[in-house]
This record gives sequence, C-alpha cells and structure tokens, in this order.
Amino acid sequence: MHNPGTTLSAMRASAPLVHNITNFVAMNVMANVLLAIGASPAMVHAREEAAEFAGLAQALTVNIGTADPAWGTAMQEAAAVMSEADRPWVFDPVGVAATRFRQDLSDRLLDLKPTVVRGNASEILTLAGLGGSARGVDTGDSVASAEDAARALAQRTGGVVAVSGPVDYITDGARVARVSNGHPMMARITVMGCSLNGVIAAFCADHPTFDATVAALAAYGAAGEMAGAAAQGPGSFQVAFLDALHALTPEALNAAAQIELAT
Amino acid sequence: MHNPGTTLSAMRASAPLVHNITNFVAMNVMANVLLAIGASPAMVHAREEAAEFAGLAQALTVNIGTADPAWGTAMQEAAAVMSEADRPWVFDPVGVAATRFRQDLSDRLLDLKPTVVRGNASEILTLAGLGGSARGVDTGDSVASAEDAARALAQRTGGVVAVSGPVDYITDGARVARVSNGHPMMARITVMGCSLNGVIAAFCADHPTFDATVAALAAYGAAGEMAGAAAQGPGSFQVAFLDALHALTPEALNAAAQIELAT
Amino acid sequence: MHNPGTTLSAMRASAPLVHNITNFVAMNVMANVLLAIGASPAMVHAREEAAEFAGLAQALTVNIGTADPAWGTAMQEAAAVMSEADRPWVFDPVGVAATRFRQDLSDRLLDLKPTVVRGNASEILTLAGLGGSARGVDTGDSVASAEDAARALAQRTGGVVAVSGPVDYITDGARVARVSNGHPMMARITVMGCSLNGVIAAFCADHPTFDATVAALAAYGAAGEMAGAAAQGPGSFQVAFLDALHALTPEALNAAAQIELAT
Repeated sequence: MHNPGTTLSAMRASAPLVHNITNFVAMNVMANVLLAIGASPAMVHAREEAAEFAGLAQALTVNIGTADPAWGTAMQEAAAVMSEADRPWVFDPVGVAATRFRQDLSDRLLDLKPTVVRGNASEILTLAGLGGSARGVDTGDSVASAEDAARALAQRTGGVVAVSGPVDYITDGARVARVSNGHPMMARITVMGCSLNGVIAAFCADHPTFDATVAALAAYGAAGEMAGAAAQGPGSFQVAFLDALHALTPEALNAAAQIELAT
Repeated sequence: MHNPGTTLSAMRASAPLVHNITNFVAMNVMANVLLAIGASPAMVHAREEAAEFAGLAQALTVNIGTADPAWGTAMQEAAAVMSEADRPWVFDPVGVAATRFRQDLSDRLLDLKPTVVRGNASEILTLAGLGGSARGVDTGDSVASAEDAARALAQRTGGVVAVSGPVDYITDGARVARVSNGHPMMARITVMGCSLNGVIAAFCADHPTFDATVAALAAYGAAGEMAGAAAQGPGSFQVAFLDALHALTPEALNAAAQIELAT
Repeated sequence: MHNPGTTLSAMRASAPLVHNITNFVAMNVMANVLLAIGASPAMVHAREEAAEFAGLAQALTVNIGTADPAWGTAMQEAAAVMSEADRPWVFDPVGVAATRFRQDLSDRLLDLKPTVVRGNASEILTLAGLGGSARGVDTGDSVASAEDAARALAQRTGGVVAVSGPVDYITDGARVARVSNGHPMMARITVMGCSLNGVIAAFCADHPTFDATVAALAAYGAAGEMAGAAAQGPGSFQVAFLDALHALTPEALNAAAQIELAT
C-alpha cells in the first residue's frame, strides 16, 4: 500500500481534470473542495455535451441526487466513455431507496461497472438488494451492517465499494480497509459525501483504485478533524474545511491517517 | 400559544424530513440551514420522483424562484400528496409579479391550499390581486401595506400567511402576530427568505400551524441577531448565521423572541 | 476616463437590477457578490420567462457553463431584448473550447453583439478562431497571447472584450486598458470569473461600457486583495471577499486601483 501522503502529492502534481455530473446542491461546494485539495474540477451534465466532455477528463463522478431522465442518459453516456477508455469513475447512489426512479437509474449505472461506488450504509444495502432503512437521503443503518452488501456489490461491479460513516469501510471484494478519520460535524453539513466523490476520483486518476480510495478517505477525514478543531459550528466548519484541504501536507496526512487493513 | 423554545425543542427531537422543491440559488444554503437548526432536508424536484418522495416526508416546501413547466408539475403533484395526507407544505411565490409564468403557476399552487404562504410584501400583494410594486425579486412595498392582502389570502387558502420584512406579519385570517426579530444584514444575503421556508415547514411538521410559523420566524430572526453581532459583513454573516442556528437554545430563543399577538 | 470610485458610487446609488442566466455552480455566489457590492440580482433562466424578465432589468449576464438547448434559447431571447433596448449584456463563454455544443451556442450569442465579452485567455482565443489550449474550463494560455484575439473579437461584436488573468486586458478594438488588481487565491475558488460578470454588468448599467468594465475589474481585484490579506485559505478567502466587496469605499477603490491605459 502506498502511503496516503505520497498519493496526495502525486495527485497535486498532475492536477487531474475531474468531470462531475452531480446534484445541484453539491456543485459549488464540490468544485471548491476539488480546487482546495489541488485538482481541476468541471461540472458538465447536459446530454448534448457530457460524453464529449468526458473524453477530455482524467476521471468522472456521477451522482443521482437531483437527476432526471435527460441527466440519466448523460450519466450513462459519460460513464461509458470512461469505462471504454479504462479511466476511473465514481458512482454515488444518493437516496437510492427513496424512489423507483433512483433505483432504475442506479441499476443501469451499475451495469456500466463503476470503478468506485461510494455511499452511506443504507444506500449500499439497497444497491445490493439487502434492504436497508434509509430516511430520505440519510442513512438509518450502521456501516457494520453493510459490510456483506459492500463485498457483494464489489464482486458485481469488479471495482471498489466504500461505505461512509464514522468508520469508513472499503473493499474490492477481497481486500478490506477501514478508515476512522473524520469529525461529527461532517454529518451536520450538506453535500460532504457528494464532494468526497470528487476527491476519490482525483486520487484514482493516476493510482490503483483500492489504495487511492483509502488515501482519499483518510485525507478527507483528516481535513475534517483539522476543521473540527477550529470551528464554532457548521458555518465556520465549512470555511475551516476548505482551508484545511488546501493546507493539508503529505506529512500531516501521513501523521493523521487512521487506516486499518484487513482481509 | 406555545413558547417558541418548546416548539424548537420538539422539532429537534423529531428531526422531521423536509422535502424541498426550491430554486437553484437556495438549495445548498437551505439544506445547511435545515441541518443547522436540527431538521433533515432533502432537495428533490424531478417530476419522475417528486410525488413519491413527498410521500416519505413530514413537510414540504415549494418555491418558484427558478421553476419551469416540468418543475411546476412536480410542485403541484407533491403539494397534492401533502394536502391529501394533511401534512404541512409552505409556498413561496418568489418574484411572482415579474412574469406571467410565475403568476399562472402561483394560481395553480394556491388552489392546492398551501398550509403556509410566505413572501415579501410585494409578493403577497400580487397574490391577493392588489398590485404591489416589486422590483425583480425584491419588495417595493412595506409590510404594513400588505396586511389586508395577507388576511384576504389566508381566507382564500384556509391557511397561514406570513409577510417577511423588518417586522414580520403573520395571520390565519383571524389571528394576527408580529415578530420583530431579525437583523438588517439578512437583506444583503441571497436566499435568506427561501431558507426560512424550510424552517417554517420543519416547525409545522408536528405543531399547530399558526403557532409554529410564529415560532419559526422568531427563531430565524433571533439567530440573525446573534449572527449580526458577530459579523463584519455579508460573508461572515452567512457563516455566523449557520453557527447561530446550530447554537440556538430554547432558553436563548425564549429570551430573544419579540412576538406581539393581536387580533 | 471616470475614476473607478465615482463609478462604484453611482452604481450603488442606482442599485441596478441585474438579470443573470448563469450556470448552476455560480448562481448563489454570484447573487451574493452582486448584493455585497450594492446591486440587485435575479437569477432567471427558464425559456418561459427569461425574455419577459429581461424587459424589467437594467443589465443582463449570459454564461454557458451549464447550458442546455432550452437555456440556449432563453439566453438568445433575453439577449435580443437587451440589444433591442440598447441595455448592456455581458457574455461569458465558459469552457467554449471543450464541446461542439458550446461553440455553436457561443457563435449564436456573438451574433447578437454582446456589450461585453469576458473570458479567460483560452476562451477568447477560441472565440476568435485562433486556437487556444484550454484544459476543461481553465485556461492554458497567457493573457498576452490573447491580445490580438481580443481586439479582433471586439471589432466583430462592436463591444468591449475583457481577458481575465493576473493582469486583465480590456479593449474595445481601439482603446486598451490593463488592470493588475487581484490576488492569486482568486484562481483557487470556483466561479470567481462568473460572479465578476455580474459586477461588470452592474457597472455598465449607467456608464459607458469601456470605462465601466475597467472600473468593475479594478473594484473586483481590489476586493480580492483585501480578502487575500485577511484569509488563511480558500474557505476564509470566500468569506473575506464578500465582506470586502461590501466594505469597499470609493476612496479605497481609487487608492487601490492599478489601471494602465494604452492604445
């Protein structure tokens, strides 16, 4: 396993262009998160240009939080471009349990074999067909309860699955890692998960997927810890979090990372 | 009348899922406002899923600030779900005077009898067919000039109407309250009114509408006063406002609330 | 040439209503930027109302960052209203090199003769048919390399062209100005260029275009310098920038402005 600081440094050196088809709520924050950590974001979703733009990008993220049928088509076309070019794309099944539309679109996206699927426990349980007790777009399940679902889903996609929570669970169907970085305030701010997808995609642009995903989760959580130490509440947390992503050095990341590897 | 601190505590204990069909400008801030005060937001607007999602929510907000015909249909279908289930929904007629499209959509939404209508004075005057002198999405009229319009509109909908301004005016057609909490900087930040709709909806999820609306306006204005005391300008005001919503205790709210009841 | 402080004061006195058809990423920040500096923003993009709304506005901005065909039609209809009424509109060709859709839409908008075109060097080179080496929505070219392209483009539109960068270049095809205000952190925050379009439009509402554009760029850059002196990173920069736009006095602007006129 690479150390996460090395992966961060290499990502910053290449500053990958990350194409994001994400929800309206996340677009601005996600772009700023990617800029703050050192990548180059673009938010492009229209069917008339999504696939063409994907051809220019080093990585792609797809998030169904505010999709509609036209965006669903754009997502599939852009994801197909990445899969054919063997470039990474990250899928976030936001609120998949809530509506039939989200379930159908997620099924079609899973068939395109996302490099990484990242969601909360309820979302991963739902994708794996194992139930789950979501509440709107929030999880009602523990990360531990979604471990079997994550492994099954990774075996279906042939990629990596990451379950976000107080301790994140990452698997490629065989290997397992747990990352316990983070801060409770991250759950009191919207689109923290959505924005993380971009960081994972940026880290995966030039690195093996499993290691890059683990490093991205550690970096994101470490920045959250730095921000939490400085913040008075959710407003000042957001500000401190962008500052922390920008200030995070490889050395500070290696010192802060709490990664446990298992099998 | 309940005291507003009690209503705030009860809302936080139930953390209602608030479904928002709001404008692009407001989505992120509104989600963070709802999280900061203790509710659970979701932003879902596509026609393919809005009504289904409304079936999961404890309350709904509808805001026409950046609507189009497809969203207009989603708004009506989601509102109909709430009305049939006797669950609250809040309607914000942003900029209704500006275009024929907004007027037609607002008429259709009023026919579905929103639990609460909240707008600025010009918007309420326009909805009541009494003119008004809006300037884009900003008011050109005083709250006092819209009192008759608010009462007439409340009698049409059978619900509560709230006119936002330096002193808010709230009526159910018979009872009247005025809330004078707030800070002038709230008018120098975008989507402060839009985000307030979510707080009203969250407070109404488990409480009688008139009392809940008054309590929500007092809580929002009290947080604005706390933020205004800490801020250097509109940027730092936004940050301090989210921190203040999160930090606001029932006791602090009861101490700060400036509510005048009348008939 | 007016001094920029006088132009700022006059803009604040009239508080022009600026209609923006901009991208999803920029909407919230751009509205707050316009409010902070003293204008009155509205974000209205649906085809069903964009032209009608433009009829109410003192100035318009058009930005293709997240356009689709329906928005493209709204942009053209709103721009035509402004051109016919001889009111200013600003065009930002975000990422025009990236896709055929953006190039076609930009061509149609240029035919409507925007009062001001503002973009980065790669975008201006692309519009002028002179190549450019964009990377997604970011420039790969220097401002100096786009000077000929800017003059040629200004001669095509009959308006002003502004190339943003460390030193901005502004021309109406004959006159030239360079503005060297700004701060490196402005390139580490998303939608700083998009939001600037609104400030240019507001300044142009009541003033000759070339002078107003120069004054707007100086004011924006001066606020960036103030923010950069106060910020710890990109998160705190955003906050300080809105505070600085709000606090910027005509006297401080005149003292800070770094404008070089040439021919």
